[in-house]
Amino acid sequence: MNGAEALVRTFLACGVDTCFANPGTSEMHFVAALDRIPGMHCVLGLFEGVVTGAADGYGRMAGKPAVTLLHCGPGLANGLANLHNARRARTPIVNLVGDQATYHRALDAPLTADIDSWARPVSAWTRSAADPLTAGADGAAAVAAARAASGIATLILPSDTGWGEGGVPAGPLPTNPPPRVDEAALEHAARILKSGEPAALLLGGQALRERAAHAAGRVAAACGAALLAPQSIVRMERGRGRTYVQRLPYQVDQAMAALAPFRHLILVGATRPVIFFAYPGKPSRPERPDAQVHLLALPGHDCLDALERLGERLGAVPSAPGAGPAPALPKGQPVSPESVAQTIAALLPDQAIVVDESVSYGRGFYAAARNAAPHDWLQLAGGAIGEGLPMATGAALAAPGRRVVSLEADGSALYTLQALWTQARERLDVTTVILANRKYAILQSELAALGAVAGPTAQAMLDLGSPSLDWVALAAGFGVDAARADTPERLGALFQQANARPGPFLIEMAIP
Amino acid sequence: MNGAEALVRTFLACGVDTCFANPGTSEMHFVAALDRIPGMHCVLGLFEGVVTGAADGYGRMAGKPAVTLLHCGPGLANGLANLHNARRARTPIVNLVGDQATYHRALDAPLTADIDSWARPVSAWTRSAADPLTAGADGAAAVAAARAASGIATLILPSDTGWGEGGVPAGPLPTNPPPRVDEAALEHAARILKSGEPAALLLGGQALRERAAHAAGRVAAACGAALLAPQSIVRMERGRGRTYVQRLPYQVDQAMAALAPFRHLILVGATRPVIFFAYPGKPSRPERPDAQVHLLALPGHDCLDALERLGERLGAVPSAPGAGPAPALPKGQPVSPESVAQTIAALLPDQAIVVDESVSYGRGFYAAARNAAPHDWLQLAGGAIGEGLPMATGAALAAPGRRVVSLEADGSALYTLQALWTQARERLDVTTVILANRKYAILQSELAALGAVAGPTAQAMLDLGSPSLDWVALAAGFGVDAARADTPERLGALFQQANARPGPFLIEMAIP
Repeated sequence: MNGAEALVRTFLACGVDTCFANPGTSEMHFVAALDRIPGMHCVLGLFEGVVTGAADGYGRMAGKPAVTLLHCGPGLANGLANLHNARRARTPIVNLVGDQATYHRALDAPLTADIDSWARPVSAWTRSAADPLTAGADGAAAVAAARAASGIATLILPSDTGWGEGGVPAGPLPTNPPPRVDEAALEHAARILKSGEPAALLLGGQALRERAAHAAGRVAAACGAALLAPQSIVRMERGRGRTYVQRLPYQVDQAMAALAPFRHLILVGATRPVIFFAYPGKPSRPERPDAQVHLLALPGHDCLDALERLGERLGAVPSAPGAGPAPALPKGQPVSPESVAQTIAALLPDQAIVVDESVSYGRGFYAAARNAAPHDWLQLAGGAIGEGLPMATGAALAAPGRRVVSLEADGSALYTLQALWTQARERLDVTTVILANRKYAILQSELAALGAVAGPTAQAMLDLGSPSLDWVALAAGFGVDAARADTPERLGALFQQANARPGPFLIEMAIP
Repeated sequence: MNGAEALVRTFLACGVDTCFANPGTSEMHFVAALDRIPGMHCVLGLFEGVVTGAADGYGRMAGKPAVTLLHCGPGLANGLANLHNARRARTPIVNLVGDQATYHRALDAPLTADIDSWARPVSAWTRSAADPLTAGADGAAAVAAARAASGIATLILPSDTGWGEGGVPAGPLPTNPPPRVDEAALEHAARILKSGEPAALLLGGQALRERAAHAAGRVAAACGAALLAPQSIVRMERGRGRTYVQRLPYQVDQAMAALAPFRHLILVGATRPVIFFAYPGKPSRPERPDAQVHLLALPGHDCLDALERLGERLGAVPSAPGAGPAPALPKGQPVSPESVAQTIAALLPDQAIVVDESVSYGRGFYAAARNAAPHDWLQLAGGAIGEGLPMATGAALAAPGRRVVSLEADGSALYTLQALWTQARERLDVTTVILANRKYAILQSELAALGAVAGPTAQAMLDLGSPSLDWVALAAGFGVDAARADTPERLGALFQQANARPGPFLIEMAIP
């Protein structure tokens, strides 16, 4: 058995059964092994950013790692931006990078690159598989590392490690459950919450899943605390009948206003808020100057357990979140962020998975969908736009039977639009709504915030309208059916049709 | 004057007047400065791989650096693969990467990344501009470093260095001409060439420009040596009436056969040949075991001077290369690599710039175009596919008035197809021919070389036909007119029409 085959058998034994791939010559022995051994679902991406973004979406929804298959250093490089996003999301991924044969590396053939330098900034664990004999063990260690760290384990596979004989498949390594927070942390949080001073729980990671958010809701009800979520949500189970958690705004002034009421901020699986970018004369931290930030649970802690124990300590009583009125379909309104958001919220399929990369035009979508049908909400965690379409692809593969609704700004979608082809190829139930305003609207507002009146050069650098992008043609080119909407009613009709049919569909929502 | 404005004024003073950009919030002060100061041609790319690949094509044709504008670490990451290619091509590029404000970095906001780790493997020079006062000087040093090293100078610009006051524009730093090779190296090469043992000159870099290749031809005529070029050609001036240089083949057996006649290989601006990938039981070096490899000139040497002096030493007499018969247009032939190559060669416009990323289907194009109208030939130097369309874009910007012919494999073109939009936006005279075989043909042959019969999994991972990609629709989506050809005659007709009209055109050549 060669090293490649040992590695494939190891991944399968460790429960890793989905491979997002854009292979090259140095990975051909691994591809041949995948071909011989049944059990791995291999999903081809036309570009590596599709591969890594899909692995992020998959890992978030499946709760276990997929394996990528990337071709040498430049193949990894093309996937780095979405690995950066996945690292921020704490998504488990086994990141497999093929490389030159060990003895060929020093000869510096054209594709040879410093893979290690490129991989380390995004990886919780990196290793180069040096010997076919231990390739299986390396694979098992990579899976365990990805799971334990909730992060990216990069395994570099030189081609001769893949083709060399002597491979031994390995079984899964033991993993520990997430640690429980200690009593002192609970006691500290409880004391703050009972102090009567205004406080908020900032929930992140597992604390935004349905049961944990419900437990947080009981805590909040018992002591009057507010519930907040980070501006970038990795995965939240929300919608009608579930606990509502207010999301922190993106813009610095709005974020400061949202946090201004609170003397205390208690982190539960979230990191301390920080403004996305610095601005002259503005603070980097959004909380008020006299605020105290407290840690109840790190992202790796058992957040559900922590919130339930905190509720017991505070004497919180079981309760069900109230269900507000379902969102109503707008009628006869012009196209606006509000009318588009309300249309989607009103028609959202039950148990949809919403992937939100709608950037500036979609800032109101989250609030509008508060009482929409129960759904999961996924956002970009690392700020590197160009992940929405791939993430939707991976989420659909992880959750067959659920509709994925991919809300995309046109500028962001253009980075990795090749994902549409994978959606068509795998016949994934994804409805993509492109918010086509034909500009980098967020940058126009950032430039205006400098007090600058944009002249022709700046306008041209922030404009996507010359020439106009035709999303219906682009989707057709990749084999995805598509149509254009220019009113909320037409959007609603297309959205319903798209969600009722199998496979992907793209709606270009023309923003006036 | 703020740091951003000092930097723009410095670039202009140093002769850098083209900026390929995909900016974000942290670059808004630089964008505002570009807006206030006339003289910089700003070219927007929808994806960073377009930006960096265009800078490579521009630098090769202009012989001077363009400046990129990339957004934080992930923006750099998206451009790394084509920076890897540019590094291998020794193309001068000033690579400007915006970053968080210096005081904001440690707070680890979502887009914060280890830019330095990502930039170093591709950069000959890196610096982070720490102070508005010295931002101009940093810019001048970056331009000088890119020119001196024929490489990538990465300047990281924290947003507060851009917006801070106190900037001082700097003028160009002195640069040295390329060093001349010493007499001992000439004497050694001359002795080898006069020995009567079979020898070849391997020409790279500047040695493939018209005058240097002509000088090499005189050397070859004087002593019976052969002239060879690397498998990947950075820029060669060639065609009817110019010295023909044989290109080394890609495949290991063919490369070994091409080098088998030679006891001596003399490097003139080229690096020692190495096989692209290692294969079990095959050598990593293609020359015969008893071959001796000699160095006449490094890529950074004055190769024209070296070849002229070598010719004088050998008593070579001035001569003009013979002009062979112009390629004939094929008639009534089926679609094949030969008929497609002959069609393009026969109809190639005078002084065309050919960007060849045609991979497996196009391996015969180079030989077919031997006696085509005089043209420049540009190829991928680093093996990271996905550079052809961007490189064509940058080459067209550097050489207005010349037609760019972009020969593209469909698999490669899909990595960075967003370049088509920039071609339409800038109305560039680029004719793209997509060789649509709807598969990764090179990988199918690599897999077959393993002796493996590809089963369904492997076939699916190397197939682009399900669903079929529609290049006419994709081009239309980006604003580029396009048409499909399914015979050599139709290809020829479309190729002539495309080359006769201003602006870009795409031909999808359907390969049966």
